[in-house]
Amino acid sequence: METLPKVLLIVGYKKVGKTTLIEKLIPELSNRGYRVGTVKHHHSDFPASFDTAGTDTWRHRQAGASSVALATPTDFAMFRDNESSISLDEIVSALGATDIVLVEGFHDEPRAKIEVLSDPNNEPICKTDSHLLAIVTPRARQATVPIFAPSHIKSLADFIEREILTVT
Amino acid sequence: METLPKVLLIVGYKKVGKTTLIEKLIPELSNRGYRVGTVKHHHSDFPASFDTAGTDTWRHRQAGASSVALATPTDFAMFRDNESSISLDEIVSALGATDIVLVEGFHDEPRAKIEVLSDPNNEPICKTDSHLLAIVTPRARQATVPIFAPSHIKSLADFIEREILTVT
Repeated sequence: METLPKVLLIVGYKKVGKTTLIEKLIPELSNRGYRVGTVKHHHSDFPASFDTAGTDTWRHRQAGASSVALATPTDFAMFRDNESSISLDEIVSALGATDIVLVEGFHDEPRAKIEVLSDPNNEPICKTDSHLLAIVTPRARQATVPIFAPSHIKSLADFIEREILTVT
Repeated sequence: METLPKVLLIVGYKKVGKTTLIEKLIPELSNRGYRVGTVKHHHSDFPASFDTAGTDTWRHRQAGASSVALATPTDFAMFRDNESSISLDEIVSALGATDIVLVEGFHDEPRAKIEVLSDPNNEPICKTDSHLLAIVTPRARQATVPIFAPSHIKSLADFIEREILTVT
């Protein structure tokens, strides 16, 4: 068994630039030799177009299967009944061989996290969370954790390497 | 850790009734107290509507993530790059708590399998496969394994309980 990848939550209010930050971190970390996985969290169901009436997976669900998966050589989708929701640990382990998984959302999880704050005058969601490692925000502000500007991706990647990737 | 579920492949030529058989087996096995998971195998990519340009997961992929997941409390989808295809073992373990996983496809896997044969005059795909446990076909034919009619779901479920579910 390979060891489980490191997990870093990218948290913050809506539309503060979480996806954009992840988009910049992926190539920066990949170029340093790390295999990067990502997880996007949605509260709602999947787009209805995916598991529509009449498909084989839909028929399996209708027949009462507790979990239904659709798999191609590289893609995989799974639906579970409401009694067995999927944990972040399960998702991370399903991602396979990666060194670090950047997770958008799941801010309640007790995991290392970086908060994106588009307005530096706002209070961070995770202000009192002991797992908050850093804040990404465009202007300096008082904080108990390091602050990075969104444009300083190299410094942030250095920090992630030091604080997460090389920590055993 | 829970023990891994039993796996039964339902194989056969195209349009012989594999999904219909699975649809009938799910409630029959569920009523006997088993949690049933299912896997549908596709050779092609997912419907394009699922991971379309502009979505956050698409942006993660474009940025070079090796694996990208989209998760809701009960649904989960994952895309991997072509270098790390997903094995049936990984899919089965991602399905979570189930007693038996009925898999449509993957007929090359060295796993217990039942072949559906709509025309009893055809030769089974898995004729010489030592993992073939039974054939489901509408009329008697010569075979080295037990034959079940598609309508005899209870007998087939008895057989699956005896040969797969209660075998340690």
